[in-house]
Amino acid sequence: MSNKLISYDNAMEIIKGEIKRLSPRTEEIDLLNSLNYILAEDVIADIDMPPFDNSAMDGYAIKFSDKKNWEIIGEISAGNYSSLTLSEGDAVLITTGSKIPPEADTVIPIEDVETSGNALVLKPNAHFKKGMNIRTKGNDLEKGKITVSSFTKIGPNVIAALASCGKIKVKVYNKLKIAVLSTGDELIPVNQIPHDDKIRASNNYSLSAAITGINHLPVNLGFAKDDKEIIRRKIKDALEMDIDMLITTGGVSVGKYDYLLELFDEAGIEKKFWRVNIKPGKPIYFGVYKKDKKKILVFGLPGNPVSSLVNFYIFIKPAVDYLYHQNEINFHTAILQHDLKKTDTKRHFSRGIIFYEEDEWRVKAEFSQSSGNLIEMSRANCLIEIEENKINPLKGEKVKCIMI
Amino acid sequence: MSNKLISYDNAMEIIKGEIKRLSPRTEEIDLLNSLNYILAEDVIADIDMPPFDNSAMDGYAIKFSDKKNWEIIGEISAGNYSSLTLSEGDAVLITTGSKIPPEADTVIPIEDVETSGNALVLKPNAHFKKGMNIRTKGNDLEKGKITVSSFTKIGPNVIAALASCGKIKVKVYNKLKIAVLSTGDELIPVNQIPHDDKIRASNNYSLSAAITGINHLPVNLGFAKDDKEIIRRKIKDALEMDIDMLITTGGVSVGKYDYLLELFDEAGIEKKFWRVNIKPGKPIYFGVYKKDKKKILVFGLPGNPVSSLVNFYIFIKPAVDYLYHQNEINFHTAILQHDLKKTDTKRHFSRGIIFYEEDEWRVKAEFSQSSGNLIEMSRANCLIEIEENKINPLKGEKVKCIMI
Repeated sequence: MSNKLISYDNAMEIIKGEIKRLSPRTEEIDLLNSLNYILAEDVIADIDMPPFDNSAMDGYAIKFSDKKNWEIIGEISAGNYSSLTLSEGDAVLITTGSKIPPEADTVIPIEDVETSGNALVLKPNAHFKKGMNIRTKGNDLEKGKITVSSFTKIGPNVIAALASCGKIKVKVYNKLKIAVLSTGDELIPVNQIPHDDKIRASNNYSLSAAITGINHLPVNLGFAKDDKEIIRRKIKDALEMDIDMLITTGGVSVGKYDYLLELFDEAGIEKKFWRVNIKPGKPIYFGVYKKDKKKILVFGLPGNPVSSLVNFYIFIKPAVDYLYHQNEINFHTAILQHDLKKTDTKRHFSRGIIFYEEDEWRVKAEFSQSSGNLIEMSRANCLIEIEENKINPLKGEKVKCIMI
Repeated sequence: MSNKLISYDNAMEIIKGEIKRLSPRTEEIDLLNSLNYILAEDVIADIDMPPFDNSAMDGYAIKFSDKKNWEIIGEISAGNYSSLTLSEGDAVLITTGSKIPPEADTVIPIEDVETSGNALVLKPNAHFKKGMNIRTKGNDLEKGKITVSSFTKIGPNVIAALASCGKIKVKVYNKLKIAVLSTGDELIPVNQIPHDDKIRASNNYSLSAAITGINHLPVNLGFAKDDKEIIRRKIKDALEMDIDMLITTGGVSVGKYDYLLELFDEAGIEKKFWRVNIKPGKPIYFGVYKKDKKKILVFGLPGNPVSSLVNFYIFIKPAVDYLYHQNEINFHTAILQHDLKKTDTKRHFSRGIIFYEEDEWRVKAEFSQSSGNLIEMSRANCLIEIEENKINPLKGEKVKCIMI
């Protein structure tokens, strides 16, 4: 690969082409701890669901006929089935989810009848049809069918289905281990006061949180000064670890202390691209390190805290979603509330605040959009994506907003 | 309060009126563990941000004049400031974020110049303006101003800002402790095979996961048979615990074993409403238990696994968001892909699958919409909210979809 500036789409294709060759391992975990993991097996229904014909309403189970009045002969509630013998003219009070007696074929909702003692009468004009309000056995899913497929992200609704299949242990894809190493002579620990041209090393914090936020495992390697020997050693140590990705920040720009590209090369990492036609985050590097049967993806992000976090959201998160077949519903189309300056042909990811007003999604971006402005970034809730060929989007135009 | 069916909006107002009187406690935690907590203090910038004038680009720092060519006299990269004395005609190679020498007032981007040895020439037609590409000290935020306000949800971008302020510990609101107790004679443990009219107790799993998913703390109280004495004891024990909410499932319907309302009353819980004009989840109960200076909110949800989870998303999650001043961006407006049957005047929350196609959000709901259908629910990614007065929404209409 040359050092030619490539497009965002091209860069993303290259990353996807590499990440799909990772073979994430699987593990078996307790269902109770499985929230937000990706399922790594097709889970089969071990019973019909529901397991028996049951009532969809609180009401009266009857045997359908021309009759419009009945005698209440008993009551069935969930888990308290009694084998009543029900003739035409008999009705049984039944609660939602309770098992239907074999002779009954219809449930009349409680609001459609009037009772007086054991006498039950259908209200005039009530909807009354044979078979109504009965959920038949296996209607939700038949025994032996797939309840939840592999590559499903496990939400509370999926956990409910898995619990119903008796799955107290589930096979899931392991969390990816993603190491984060910051570099830069300007960095000082967060708990110190910066003097001269120093700044606090916030990238380890923000990127580790971003990794945790997508349910993977950050491995915090701290930060290193721009000393070739130190960084060389840190990269070597990282590549020897059992990790899936290495993210570095800093050292990918044009200064004389920007050693990272040289050191990546020296460490045997194959460069796939360097520099993408985007703003912010242009200097991003991407490479692959092959190790036995495993690969480690290496992302060299710029040191700027806004750029590196934007890079995470626009490259790394979508790549991980792609690996796990996830189509995340994480963007909105919103109406721009003012003109936005964009005079170049880069793809921009501007920081914005999206809100809903007067039946429309709207987005403000009255920020300087300087990639130095971390406080502004902290107030944003989305990235406004503006494509390469779009110049100066105007107030009132619809723009794509990626939620962050 | 009477037992009159109330509207969804009315129910939500009642819940909000009660939840806002809770006074959640605060704690100080490590910044590294603070993701998704709600900040409980205004954090003040202890330094100007950025702390010094710096370059917004990789480029050359110069003193602006009519000149279009310069001599490169040195280089400054981030963290390696050297106090060069710069005259008109001198240029210093400078990387993004690096401190600007005092005499320089302008940075020319690297792509706008040509170099030959130490000679630097501005490219014809390059944009060239005094003061360009310099981020001035304090431009992002001045020392003493609020960096991040109380009630901000802590995302990775907020963590970056807090780290930049040297906050390695932050004051946050405690996670709410939310106990979950399922009731019902039909329930058996998840690891058993159901026979007759039994079903697996999935509600503790799904509701605990839903509570974890909104970053609060589930307290799993398991499940109890419909035995008055057992449930009475379980409720008493729960109310004696240090919890903020109690969620029960089952026992709020019309059967003879539906003891919960009676037992809530007996335990001294003040009923605020019972039964809301919605589908599914109509039998929901809401009450408040006063204990010393504290309140426990009590939600009695129906036993049906779909209904109870829908109740969680439409009542409990919005209530918690309200307590913490969160305006969650968690819905889309989407085009209905087919007619939907709705003949009553309840508010419906139908299970749907939202997707993006041909530049539009679209939603399918080709499900039976029976509240018994947990497998269908597990495949949904949203709830389609259809208001009371809307009858039979048609294919092509826009509907509100709450992401789950």
